[in-house]
Amino acid sequence: MENTLNYEFRDKLLLEQALRHSSAKSDNAGSNERLEFLGDSLLGMVISEMLYRQFPEMQEGDLSLIKSEVVSRLVLAQEAKKIELHQWIQVGKGFKEKANVPDSILANVLEALFGAIYLDGGLEPLKIIIIRLFSDKIAEIVAREHEVNYKAALQHYTQKELGLMPVYQVVKETGPRHEPVFTVTVRIEDKEYGPGKGKTKKEAEQSAALIALQEFGKTN
Amino acid sequence: MENTLNYEFRDKLLLEQALRHSSAKSDNAGSNERLEFLGDSLLGMVISEMLYRQFPEMQEGDLSLIKSEVVSRLVLAQEAKKIELHQWIQVGKGFKEKANVPDSILANVLEALFGAIYLDGGLEPLKIIIIRLFSDKIAEIVAREHEVNYKAALQHYTQKELGLMPVYQVVKETGPRHEPVFTVTVRIEDKEYGPGKGKTKKEAEQSAALIALQEFGKTN
Repeated sequence: MENTLNYEFRDKLLLEQALRHSSAKSDNAGSNERLEFLGDSLLGMVISEMLYRQFPEMQEGDLSLIKSEVVSRLVLAQEAKKIELHQWIQVGKGFKEKANVPDSILANVLEALFGAIYLDGGLEPLKIIIIRLFSDKIAEIVAREHEVNYKAALQHYTQKELGLMPVYQVVKETGPRHEPVFTVTVRIEDKEYGPGKGKTKKEAEQSAALIALQEFGKTN
Repeated sequence: MENTLNYEFRDKLLLEQALRHSSAKSDNAGSNERLEFLGDSLLGMVISEMLYRQFPEMQEGDLSLIKSEVVSRLVLAQEAKKIELHQWIQVGKGFKEKANVPDSILANVLEALFGAIYLDGGLEPLKIIIIRLFSDKIAEIVAREHEVNYKAALQHYTQKELGLMPVYQVVKETGPRHEPVFTVTVRIEDKEYGPGKGKTKKEAEQSAALIALQEFGKTN
């Protein structure tokens, strides 16, 4: 664990405590819940500072949106898996295979680990570790959020230039229920653009909006 | 402002930006919203660490509960008023009297100020300021939460020992409307305990619960 993180604990008991989920608690040995409480707020703070500094033009609403995705259980569990955290955690006997430990526990243990690193070594080493773990994810999420702007960009263009709103319409829904494919067109004045496809209505609308923007020569 | 906080900004522009609510934004001068985003997470982190260190025996659930109250809009606005923040903030012309600025804006400006102090001077001066501002409030909230346990303790006892729930009843409400005094009794089996008095129904119930616990010899 310490090799993977490239951080050596001075106090090994702190590391042990961070890795000890409450389901593994025997007698009075502390579980990691208090460390998780601390680590959760540390992660939030470090991610906030990363976003604040990395995106000086980004408004508060977008910063909050991106942050909430970065610190979500889902993303935390993904990062925990990348460093193979499940190999190291201590859970109760109810979990026969550590590989099957639920995402929520992985996420909690990762947060506890952040709390322990802070108590052991202070904010600077923790920042380095969080930056290393989350930079790619932040870039990915920001890229995706930008894409989401095709609809907004198209609306901005049509309102300003034509005084009207684009109208989206789902023209087809195919695929099985758990894996649907939506086909969407967008009508602007009398012309239809697209179709765009996507796994959600929104994705398909984005795709149609992008096609329309391309036809208007408004992508750059 | 700097005297009140006992902190002198190196970068006065940061201080100005923190005090500038978005309603006061003229042309491209930045408002304080991004600083508020940063300050919010800093406050959360500093309060979490304070609670973690100050209450080594407290469980995660209680830490979270107390934290959420400390960082609430209500408490932030109270602290903002104590340092007379309203005198210093820049708001739009819609607010004729700065004293009438809503609590939510005061809370936001205080958070922005925390973000600005961090960027200007780092975490250590910010910690000192937050500890000075919030220590009393934390002590007050923790004391209240402990008190809140009388009702829970009584219920725990009566359910376990007698298989029934305590029944609270307001028997009197006196005092002027803005300063009511509630008198509450609690019935357990055929016996009435109390009465307890308080400024709220809940406070009076707590008081009655404590009296009952004392009669059962269950306070320690």
